[in-house]
Amino acid sequence: MNFPSPKDRGKLDPADPGSQHLIADWNALQRVFIRPEDEGSRQTLVKYMEQIFFGLHDFLNQHVGVTEEISLAELSLAHTDTRINKEPLKKLADVIEDIIQEIAPRAVNVASPYFVGHMTAAIPFFMVHLKAITAALNQNVIKLETSKILSVLEKQVLGKMHRMIYKREQAFYDAHVQNIETSLGVFTTGGTTANITALWVARNLALSPTGPFASVEQDGIFAALKAHGLERMVVLVSSRGHFSLKKAGGILGIGNQNIISIDEDENRSIDLKKLEQTIQAFKIEGKTRILAIVGIAGATETGIIDPLPQLADICRDHNIHFHVDAAWGGPVLLSEKYAPLLEGIQRADSVTIDCHKQFYMPMTAGMVYFKDPEALDQIVYHARYINRKGSVDLGIKTLEGSREANSLILDSALKIMGSRGYGLMIDHGIETARGFARKIDARPLFQLVTRPCLNILTYRVVPLFIRKQLETADKMEQCRINARLDRINTNLQRTQREAGKSFVSRTRLRVNPKDSQDVVVLRSVIMNPYTTPEILDEILDEQEALLADMIIPD
Amino acid sequence: MNFPSPKDRGKLDPADPGSQHLIADWNALQRVFIRPEDEGSRQTLVKYMEQIFFGLHDFLNQHVGVTEEISLAELSLAHTDTRINKEPLKKLADVIEDIIQEIAPRAVNVASPYFVGHMTAAIPFFMVHLKAITAALNQNVIKLETSKILSVLEKQVLGKMHRMIYKREQAFYDAHVQNIETSLGVFTTGGTTANITALWVARNLALSPTGPFASVEQDGIFAALKAHGLERMVVLVSSRGHFSLKKAGGILGIGNQNIISIDEDENRSIDLKKLEQTIQAFKIEGKTRILAIVGIAGATETGIIDPLPQLADICRDHNIHFHVDAAWGGPVLLSEKYAPLLEGIQRADSVTIDCHKQFYMPMTAGMVYFKDPEALDQIVYHARYINRKGSVDLGIKTLEGSREANSLILDSALKIMGSRGYGLMIDHGIETARGFARKIDARPLFQLVTRPCLNILTYRVVPLFIRKQLETADKMEQCRINARLDRINTNLQRTQREAGKSFVSRTRLRVNPKDSQDVVVLRSVIMNPYTTPEILDEILDEQEALLADMIIPD
Repeated sequence: MNFPSPKDRGKLDPADPGSQHLIADWNALQRVFIRPEDEGSRQTLVKYMEQIFFGLHDFLNQHVGVTEEISLAELSLAHTDTRINKEPLKKLADVIEDIIQEIAPRAVNVASPYFVGHMTAAIPFFMVHLKAITAALNQNVIKLETSKILSVLEKQVLGKMHRMIYKREQAFYDAHVQNIETSLGVFTTGGTTANITALWVARNLALSPTGPFASVEQDGIFAALKAHGLERMVVLVSSRGHFSLKKAGGILGIGNQNIISIDEDENRSIDLKKLEQTIQAFKIEGKTRILAIVGIAGATETGIIDPLPQLADICRDHNIHFHVDAAWGGPVLLSEKYAPLLEGIQRADSVTIDCHKQFYMPMTAGMVYFKDPEALDQIVYHARYINRKGSVDLGIKTLEGSREANSLILDSALKIMGSRGYGLMIDHGIETARGFARKIDARPLFQLVTRPCLNILTYRVVPLFIRKQLETADKMEQCRINARLDRINTNLQRTQREAGKSFVSRTRLRVNPKDSQDVVVLRSVIMNPYTTPEILDEILDEQEALLADMIIPD
Repeated sequence: MNFPSPKDRGKLDPADPGSQHLIADWNALQRVFIRPEDEGSRQTLVKYMEQIFFGLHDFLNQHVGVTEEISLAELSLAHTDTRINKEPLKKLADVIEDIIQEIAPRAVNVASPYFVGHMTAAIPFFMVHLKAITAALNQNVIKLETSKILSVLEKQVLGKMHRMIYKREQAFYDAHVQNIETSLGVFTTGGTTANITALWVARNLALSPTGPFASVEQDGIFAALKAHGLERMVVLVSSRGHFSLKKAGGILGIGNQNIISIDEDENRSIDLKKLEQTIQAFKIEGKTRILAIVGIAGATETGIIDPLPQLADICRDHNIHFHVDAAWGGPVLLSEKYAPLLEGIQRADSVTIDCHKQFYMPMTAGMVYFKDPEALDQIVYHARYINRKGSVDLGIKTLEGSREANSLILDSALKIMGSRGYGLMIDHGIETARGFARKIDARPLFQLVTRPCLNILTYRVVPLFIRKQLETADKMEQCRINARLDRINTNLQRTQREAGKSFVSRTRLRVNPKDSQDVVVLRSVIMNPYTTPEILDEILDEQEALLADMIIPD
């Protein structure tokens, strides 16, 4: 196809691409929308891409952890100008160069094997290629007319994931995988919107039509509760529930204080007795509808998995929606060795899984699956110009509107890695974390707080002289000593982060589930395949050394 | 830094990278996490990227519009396998090759200048580079510990956009741009979550604490309305409101039927008299709180801009939150010529703007801005492990959780394009659409339904013999004739789409705002800088030719 010759808009200076003085110009603008046709420009484009791949990678190999070479205050001072340049300031090559020179060294090298503090880590290099492909195609899977095969592919990938979770019979998938009336799940932009979507569906299912009341979705929560003679809806989840669940309570109009925390039991998972007691109490009270119970499969802070089969029993007995937040743990299903840890997940009414966590996809993508392929009918929205009734448009049943084709990345990654490839990553993380726990146990300076169920553990430093004090202290004194330990551990975490060699995060947990007080703990997440036992030893060595140099706070 | 030598997990066959038989293997897995160090592998990676850039682009140059070479039914049949391969199926090179050969030709060429049906179009090639950089850095801007400079940069870019909208004094931006206590706006994953965020904030602001009632966010809508002696919350918006507003009503627990449509006036924007009447009626009724009035700046279907200054007056007079949905129209502020069309937007309490629309960014990114830098305090969420109170973490005030660093893409694009570059794109779209309208007016077969205010217009074909019938018909007969025209226009839109040369979309609108009946109209969105008057003539020629060949439905 020949593109028409550039239209002369007649009111601008002609651009001189070689000139240092850049001017916005129609011809130049048009050129940036197509690839240059000549070989020279082709080479230039490829050179830029090389810079991205290797320039950035050289940085990633040289810097580990979070550098504090430049302080946040200094960085902030350098980024206060809110004026937008009128004429072009820079060419692409200079922008890329700036990013490599100025941005990358001040970003966080989440790809370092010494960066074991958060659920963000190295991603396989092919993910960058796949993301670039997705951007180059720029399909919008909200509707068939801007995505075509990508809509079909998305349904297939949703089928693959549903099958990984629910393992239904072949006939079930034959009936639903490409069925335009039903949905096995949806892609979201992350675990947060996946959890919100699941509870949104559960909220709507919890209060059925009666009299003039049609649905929570149409009439709102006030009318819904009034029609049912109720005053409140609640969600029950262990105190380790992700903060997106509280956010869901707020956004869905339930109220975030109605996301009710159930204490952990001695295994650090949800206390089933307390859960049952809470359910009974609400039954007696008679004004509250429990719209869902959430089981966690890989708690953000501890990696703990709730007893999913027992939760499934309870939900079945009381007819309550059972949601499993497997944002972190979901891909464990691909490990032949550890998949049994998630036994019971196939009984969940809905399941959240993140793509940018243990599927190692670039930021951001999540998914939510439903046992009942008609559950998502609870949140159907149509428009006149797209997403019409009876259309194949995937945007009919999503929280988000426009969406990129993340299913293409996940599907390609599964083809390149195989389930076994992902499984090996899972195995490495779990086994390395277990080895790390043994190292922590073996060093007198450290106290393991939560043992890894998956690839996450927490611990804290307890200097020997304080440990002795703690052993003989009464409750009041323990409280004071723990506050001191909190200051020590907070300082230590910050100092290590600022040293820029390695990074663990910190959170607040109870040392024993029965304690009444949270303490500061250090938190490690092992997901980088280059994080070895030797590296973890180095991290502990560094912490010991930093502590030796630290002025211990009172 | 030297990476440790690959750990031998001891239970796998060694990988032979050259072998046809692929096996998941620890060494091979580790390799995909780093760039190959030798020159040969370097070349291979670059070659892949060339394939992506030029292989895809060759496709884009060869195919226009939505191809129907393969039917949806056939595509669906080819994508039913829901099994996940255990061992790797393919190498990256083969995956890329497959995408270029099998996926791209069956995707939709939204980059074609003949694709003028939706708000998705060609993007500048540098956007793909910028997206790749963002993926390679893989920062998560939910928190400082996984983003550092990108959090600071995001605040700066939010400041730039806020200033573009609100044009506040320098001292205001000095006080807020890097202030960790306040927020000028947030990035979202699109206009839908931006609109939801705005109405979420407005919902919470609408009902103040009273007695034991603390906030909608904490206590939920039922307690909130009860505490205020109310029964309902509503949002008022013209009947052209985007469907995400209804969705927001559903998700926020307000009820989507409480997103109340106000008719259009003779200018196709919100009827201010009817709006005032509705406000008065709710005042008299006394059980309803109007939580927001939404003004549209670039309606999805018609491109119409509501009278923003008048809406601002009404909202001020009645103390109602004023939200402007400028998902489409926001970047018009960068056109010196047409920015006055958005006069009044600076008086909005909140403003939605999409990045993947007229900022030409890849899918997907949106933004929402607030006049009051403390408005987002209404939706603050903390966690123990990140987003702690007083932290700089941006995830404290966002609907979404993990987020990619889209601000880097927008900031770089502004540097490369300049505001003037974006302005020229806007000017081209508006002026080309106006020229298109004149063409439609000049052809007897076509009826212009909505004249372009921005770069969107709608029209329909009305064969001459039907036009004559319509002129003399009574109401009942008109209705029948319009139903016939609906079938003709629906057929025409489908036939043209399936022919694969060009694409316009369709929706349902009233021919005159006072009509009682919606009719099917064809819809054009002019945003591709290569879409010329000549191409638009070709599209109309094609429609005339298709109609000549069509068996006109009864």
